[in-house]
Amino acid sequence: MTDSRSTALLTDHYELTMLQASLRDGTADRPSVFELFARRLSGGRRYGVVAGVGRALDALADFRFGDAELSFLREAQIVDADTLDWLADHRFSGTIWGYPDGEIYFPQSPVMIVEGTFAECVLLETLLLSILNHDSAIATAASRMITAAGDRPCIEMGSRRTQEQAAVAAARAAYIAGFAATSNLEAGRTYGIPTTGTSAHSFTLVHDSEREAFEAQISALGPGTTVLVDTYDVAEAIRTAVDLAGGELGGVRLDSGDLVSLARSVRQQLDDLGATKTRITVTSDLDEYAIAALAVAPVDGYGVGTSLVTGSGVPTSGFVYKLVSRADDDGQMVSVAKKSADKVSVGGRKYAMRRLGPTGRAQAEVIGIGSSPDHDANDRPLLVELVRDGKRVHTDSLEDARARLQASLAELPASARRLSKADPVLDTIYQEMDS
Amino acid sequence: MTDSRSTALLTDHYELTMLQASLRDGTADRPSVFELFARRLSGGRRYGVVAGVGRALDALADFRFGDAELSFLREAQIVDADTLDWLADHRFSGTIWGYPDGEIYFPQSPVMIVEGTFAECVLLETLLLSILNHDSAIATAASRMITAAGDRPCIEMGSRRTQEQAAVAAARAAYIAGFAATSNLEAGRTYGIPTTGTSAHSFTLVHDSEREAFEAQISALGPGTTVLVDTYDVAEAIRTAVDLAGGELGGVRLDSGDLVSLARSVRQQLDDLGATKTRITVTSDLDEYAIAALAVAPVDGYGVGTSLVTGSGVPTSGFVYKLVSRADDDGQMVSVAKKSADKVSVGGRKYAMRRLGPTGRAQAEVIGIGSSPDHDANDRPLLVELVRDGKRVHTDSLEDARARLQASLAELPASARRLSKADPVLDTIYQEMDS
Repeated sequence: MTDSRSTALLTDHYELTMLQASLRDGTADRPSVFELFARRLSGGRRYGVVAGVGRALDALADFRFGDAELSFLREAQIVDADTLDWLADHRFSGTIWGYPDGEIYFPQSPVMIVEGTFAECVLLETLLLSILNHDSAIATAASRMITAAGDRPCIEMGSRRTQEQAAVAAARAAYIAGFAATSNLEAGRTYGIPTTGTSAHSFTLVHDSEREAFEAQISALGPGTTVLVDTYDVAEAIRTAVDLAGGELGGVRLDSGDLVSLARSVRQQLDDLGATKTRITVTSDLDEYAIAALAVAPVDGYGVGTSLVTGSGVPTSGFVYKLVSRADDDGQMVSVAKKSADKVSVGGRKYAMRRLGPTGRAQAEVIGIGSSPDHDANDRPLLVELVRDGKRVHTDSLEDARARLQASLAELPASARRLSKADPVLDTIYQEMDS
Repeated sequence: MTDSRSTALLTDHYELTMLQASLRDGTADRPSVFELFARRLSGGRRYGVVAGVGRALDALADFRFGDAELSFLREAQIVDADTLDWLADHRFSGTIWGYPDGEIYFPQSPVMIVEGTFAECVLLETLLLSILNHDSAIATAASRMITAAGDRPCIEMGSRRTQEQAAVAAARAAYIAGFAATSNLEAGRTYGIPTTGTSAHSFTLVHDSEREAFEAQISALGPGTTVLVDTYDVAEAIRTAVDLAGGELGGVRLDSGDLVSLARSVRQQLDDLGATKTRITVTSDLDEYAIAALAVAPVDGYGVGTSLVTGSGVPTSGFVYKLVSRADDDGQMVSVAKKSADKVSVGGRKYAMRRLGPTGRAQAEVIGIGSSPDHDANDRPLLVELVRDGKRVHTDSLEDARARLQASLAELPASARRLSKADPVLDTIYQEMDS
């Protein structure tokens, strides 16, 4: 079967050579547990936001080696015939637990736990990491922007600044974090995210005058549209737009200049012209700090591009995917971990709780090794079952994820909402069980 | 026609609203010239490397609105019925010139020039920018790593640190810049890039001992394989590997620790054990600076991940796409440019030359507005025709692009190869023509 949607080759060469070697000596079939986690939060982030879980589950459903994939592996001599035979029938049959989209994570949080044979788990390393590392980095940055924006809506418009498919994923991650809409049409089609947009400078410039451009836009899109007013002279543009649309003018967009002072003078001018309901949107190289600085300005909404899709300085989350437990020859599960040098891991199957105090305020990320940590009724289990015996059992919507993030953020100490660099706002505590 | 490969929705909402408004007032048909260029080189880069042109031309071929795309636009009420009708028949029929993959660019270089009607050109803004902004950022970072690595090969292995489709594009960009291979299998299938990889820590840990893991790997992949030696104790692992494979052991990989001193002790140990031909590959969080620091160490190759796929601090190139010329009512082409505030553009259709001195050393980037700048036989025209009247006419291979970058780099002053932040190594000079 040729299937152009197959995700099976979105992986690293070495996973297939490991598969081949493990099939030969039988370790391929050893029951195994892999864990996806971050050793730290990069960039002085106070918390991380999980995103990409829904996409990962979609990708897992398309993880199959069809004729096209097998032909490539055969012709490029990447694996031997026995391995190709194994791949032809392969479907992931294991179980996955994880933090769902919109959940908050901290260093060492067991964000995803993949249980199955060594062979079927090791094959998913790159695909799961690619999706979670990208999407969570975007969602984490986006969440800080939403915090900075307060009640004002943020629109994601960074597609042009990132790879064209990454743009669609970024729009999804931003929406989970609370963005109101995206400029990306494919994100609208694929994920049902609201899309928005009106016009660029080129639209003004292709007309013989700004007035003709505004007339054309208002005629086509109605007076409630948002016009871009900084192609020539902002004050002149606003006079023209209000002259054409009156107090019904939906909005003006500012894409350059000293935005705080410009927004004030624009607001004053709009009010003086009677366009008191016309909204001001700003869109010029904003990040969470620029948004915070605009809190004092009479701005009604933010469009965020480059800094959103590049994670505002942290374009990847630093998740790794490690074997933490596997069966020995007697079928007993054994904790395993790399021992040498600087990248030490903690072995064992993990369970995770957010410890909540009597008022529901989060106090710590508590991780049990081998079994669930001690907890009381206030504490909140963090892992949900995503896939059971190869079958997807988790189908939360993006609206669920948005609500989850709001609720999880509300549990955190208020310092979580500060933008400056700091340590994670919760400590991660291991609780080893007696076995 | 439903076509899941369509790239038509990898664009921003506003391009379709501009289309609708311009169709209504007739400006949609105005002959227009758009230019894709960077105002500056971010991150103190001394030069930029163009990558993504071949991908952009592939994406253009798939830029068509089939039933699935039109249904979405209709149901989401993004454009009106007349616009949908126009889109149903739409194919780009214009002409595109540009810097080909592997060419070097500077601020204001007219990296791509798109000529056609306003409607057909404006629709391509986001798609072209997404591809060029991402791929050129990766290629620019990759070129610095290749310079730092000197004669030692670099392997791209960053797939897990970026979005899963961006990973494939990153592998292509790195290959253009001179990387020898990638870990990404889809890049192998799609672009014919050599792939490589052997084993991870999990492979060692799933075995009862490191010896059993190495035995399995050498048995499956031959003694010429590269073993990962830092799961437990490096010196012990090397003794084991040489014991099993003898002097035929292909390589050892170091993924943690103080790499300079570790590489020295590993080389000494390998030589003492008679494994004088066994190669040492290092793969731990390398960027161009770490690679440069390893020049003094006995290392035979580098595997680069995170910093490669994130552009080593500059994940996007800052290209913009601006209308620079369009016809007036009499059919005369008129230069246009945004005038207000801080983001000024230069209007007019551009032509570009690299001015080369008598010895072939590059001296300046010379841009003519409206016609080709004065030049002599030493100077090198930079724009090549990519698409003529809607038909792709440029089909360079990745090998062509690799060779082009090597040749273009060789023209630059030696200071281009320094890694520290600086101004661009060539000045960009406008030469206005008498008309």
